Amino acid sequence: MKLIIAVVQDQDSHKLMNALVRENFRATKLASTGGFLRVGNTTFLIGVEDERVEEALEVIRKNCESREQLISPLPPLGGHAESYVPYPVEVQVGGATVFVLPVEAFHHF
Amino acid sequence: MKLIIAVVQDQDSHKLMNALVRENFRATKLASTGGFLRVGNTTFLIGVEDERVEEALEVIRKNCESREQLISPLPPLGGHAESYVPYPVEVQVGGATVFVLPVEAFHHF
Amino acid sequence: MKLIIAVVQDQDSHKLMNALVRENFRATKLASTGGFLRVGNTTFLIGVEDERVEEALEVIRKNCESREQLISPLPPLGGHAESYVPYPVEVQVGGATVFVLPVEAFHHF
Ligand code: NI
Ligand code: NI
Ligand code: NI
Repeated sequence: MKLIIAVVQDQDSHKLMNALVRENFRATKLASTGGFLRVGNTTFLIGVEDERVEEALEVIRKNCESREQLISPLPPLGGHAESYVPYPVEVQVGGATVFVLPVEAFHHF
Repeated sequence: MKLIIAVVQDQDSHKLMNALVRENFRATKLASTGGFLRVGNTTFLIGVEDERVEEALEVIRKNCESREQLISPLPPLGGHAESYVPYPVEVQVGGATVFVLPVEAFHHF
Repeated sequence: MKLIIAVVQDQDSHKLMNALVRENFRATKLASTGGFLRVGNTTFLIGVEDERVEEALEVIRKNCESREQLISPLPPLGGHAESYVPYPVEVQVGGATVFVLPVEAFHHF
């Protein structure tokens, strides 16, 4: 048994939980803030049998991997028009910081 | 020293914290949601001397063990009366998912 | 790689996060309540290379160490005047409970 602690961006959190449940992994979510990733993030605790660790990491990678996304900035409501970019820009989204921890004992009561 | 991470149902969380304090264990609670247990849950971090791990697990088991409870469903306020069950039903409550982690160093500043 | 889990008082949490970022450590914060420390607390997860563990512990100690602080109690708004202490009193603030955990694998996606 291993305990995977994964810090992911909020925007990927729902998708990841659904994917974990679909693949029969059991996870709990902790509200977390800042730090590893700049924007709002969620910390997952995932208890995994040794032989399924790679599979769990793959689910996290697929759903949370850092990628570029085109976003169209909203026009400014007033002022600061000089810094307004009227075309889509690429921003970095997603990303996951993942720790695999050894577990000495696991119990389910 | 071990770190026990225990995910328990919200309804058992207050009782468990009181029992841990009474037995002189030191714990902190993290707000957590969904996953290991279907309903709202709380994640406990409990720092424990090696020789008291079994005792701590017993406190968790006693206060959080999965059990059946009789509940009397409330009559429906309107509509869906066809699915109303007018007698108490047994539901599964409680339960704890517990990881015992090795600790390389412990400090109290 | 180690995972440092540090439970600190809320009042030191902002200062600690700033100090960690300044020293190029990466941390995430979890909202936590009660237990190890009597007042509101915050749990930090800090991923650290083996050779920087002592340095990270020193940042935590410097910013969170338990210390005495003089506070001037506010006069009571009404009633209980008999228990009002009209001079500054020393109270214990700060403190940190810190676990250093072994990490079997670390990934950044
Ligand atoms: Ni944030
Ligand atoms: Ni929930
Ligand atoms: Ni508190």
